[in-house]
Amino acid sequence: MAPRPGERDAAARPVTLERVATAAGVSRQTVSNALNAPGRLHPDTLARVQQVIDELGYRPNRSARSLRTRSAGLIGYGIRPGGGLNPVLDRFLPSLCGAAEASGRRILLFSASRQSGADGEHAVYADLLARGAVDGFALSDLMVGDPRPGWLTERGVAFASFGRTWSDRQAGPWVDIDGAAGVEAAVRHLHEQGHRRIGFLGGSGPGGDRLGGWRRSCRALGLPADDALVSRGSDGTAGGRLATERLLGAPEPPTALVAVSDPLALGALRAISERGRTPGRDIGVTGFDDTPLATAAPPGLTSVRRPVEDAARHLVRLLDAAQLDPAPDPPHLLLAPTLVVRGSSVRQPGSAAPSPEA
Amino acid sequence: MAPRPGERDAAARPVTLERVATAAGVSRQTVSNALNAPGRLHPDTLARVQQVIDELGYRPNRSARSLRTRSAGLIGYGIRPGGGLNPVLDRFLPSLCGAAEASGRRILLFSASRQSGADGEHAVYADLLARGAVDGFALSDLMVGDPRPGWLTERGVAFASFGRTWSDRQAGPWVDIDGAAGVEAAVRHLHEQGHRRIGFLGGSGPGGDRLGGWRRSCRALGLPADDALVSRGSDGTAGGRLATERLLGAPEPPTALVAVSDPLALGALRAISERGRTPGRDIGVTGFDDTPLATAAPPGLTSVRRPVEDAARHLVRLLDAAQLDPAPDPPHLLLAPTLVVRGSSVRQPGSAAPSPEA
Repeated sequence: MAPRPGERDAAARPVTLERVATAAGVSRQTVSNALNAPGRLHPDTLARVQQVIDELGYRPNRSARSLRTRSAGLIGYGIRPGGGLNPVLDRFLPSLCGAAEASGRRILLFSASRQSGADGEHAVYADLLARGAVDGFALSDLMVGDPRPGWLTERGVAFASFGRTWSDRQAGPWVDIDGAAGVEAAVRHLHEQGHRRIGFLGGSGPGGDRLGGWRRSCRALGLPADDALVSRGSDGTAGGRLATERLLGAPEPPTALVAVSDPLALGALRAISERGRTPGRDIGVTGFDDTPLATAAPPGLTSVRRPVEDAARHLVRLLDAAQLDPAPDPPHLLLAPTLVVRGSSVRQPGSAAPSPEA
Repeated sequence: MAPRPGERDAAARPVTLERVATAAGVSRQTVSNALNAPGRLHPDTLARVQQVIDELGYRPNRSARSLRTRSAGLIGYGIRPGGGLNPVLDRFLPSLCGAAEASGRRILLFSASRQSGADGEHAVYADLLARGAVDGFALSDLMVGDPRPGWLTERGVAFASFGRTWSDRQAGPWVDIDGAAGVEAAVRHLHEQGHRRIGFLGGSGPGGDRLGGWRRSCRALGLPADDALVSRGSDGTAGGRLATERLLGAPEPPTALVAVSDPLALGALRAISERGRTPGRDIGVTGFDDTPLATAAPPGLTSVRRPVEDAARHLVRLLDAAQLDPAPDPPHLLLAPTLVVRGSSVRQPGSAAPSPEA
């Protein structure tokens, strides 16, 4: 016999916010807070509501929630000026926008100048949240000790980060690209090309993981990794040229260089050519980020390519998960970059073992 | 005697939508349409309402309007992947965001792939408008015959464009940067450096105004401007190298080259060096857009810099004006670029007159 209206099996009824509230013995507002502003609830209450949400398999209707909060499912993102070779603007933001759309949302932009610092950004967060303009935030360009993830977590705001604060326990979910693994791939490739003294060209930034990756991989291959092979200077082509000059003028110069950026690597190519040596054949060079500089001039620059588009997609997934279930132990994701090999690091077949002087 | 409540002078009362409707003899909805969807009104009605708006000095309260439309003052902008050397993503979008904020609004991003074409973008416009998600649109990357301005105008949607459709009567307000003037500045500079045969390196795009600027300025200076001095090929460094080879191998080669992009100009520098000539001293070269390539390698590339940030600011101003008063003859604005001079176009003082072969 067909069930009469109102008599259907409870399990077949859609799981609503109402049902979750009744089952957990809390108000509808408390369930809403558990989903949208978990920081406002006592941890015990939050845990109880989350348990019921899991048991019943409740999934909030995003469009209904958007109407309630007037946010239309917008994700806030602070845009910074690019500087021309920044894969964040060039590849991350379009991918973030596409991934947000695939999950039924869009990006609301606001200005986050490099200078204003986190305090200025917190004021914008507070304003957007007070007006219900966004559902959550996507962060990028995280700095060492960046206070933004902590600020958002304290207020129970859903967010996810592209990048790390490098603190022991970074707040909130994050995805990053393993810079150390990128440098390690470059060192392994240069080792395969016959190089046995591989130098490290650093910039002005911290970049501790990249230097660490260089040390680890050199040692693992039985290669020297002492400070005499490390040269750090100002960013950019001129800085890379000077830093390379220092290394190549040393008593025991390297036969290959791993640079932490393409402009630094381009400066290295210039310094090598000025010494009458041929990049690739005589001295191997690798860059970082596979920017347009890498293909602009012969012999082409081998460069570490970061899967920035993948990071954007993962970030939206992490943000989705954070909105449904703000876990006390949010997930972290470290993606592996790939090495794009071009002429700057490839010795001609059958050439002599590399040596720093002809 | 102080006026009693309700008896104040009409002139001192705030000018409201209601007052405009009464004075114009139309409904409040008609006034609202005149402001937000002028395309829905008969031109006579629109003119009458606009006259009253002007006479009373009515200025709509943006935040009140935002609440009505649930749009929170958002401007829709379709983002395209950058490709690494695109000043639109790198400089225009951050500036657009800042300018929107200065006028109390923010940018809502949506994906506009280079491939999907205008039809796909129209569907997104329609969706955002139906949901009241945006107040208007900012367009960029306009193509020849781009249908987007016409589509938006027909529907009475406020928008402004960065770029031109090159049709006789482009719909809606626009701001653009005068590419012809940029090429003219490059030609004048090379002429001042002593060059009397100046070639033109074009890419695969139309770029008709840049070629026209080259012809006009060469003729104005009494220099040859025939097709034998024009070389067009594929975009990018390799294309620029081949196109330069063709020009330098001609019976009467040019002593200077104006390129419509930095990658093309970089290819020219390469072709010149491969012939054993020195860029700048022997053969002058200029690029376009002042990208990071221009400073990446010696002797530095002279390049036309477009005031993209200014264009973004003007666009928001034009959009503001369009929302207040959708004029039948919308304003157009053409900004002048500047030439950033570097080594690639500067002859050493006291050097011999330039000649294509040593």
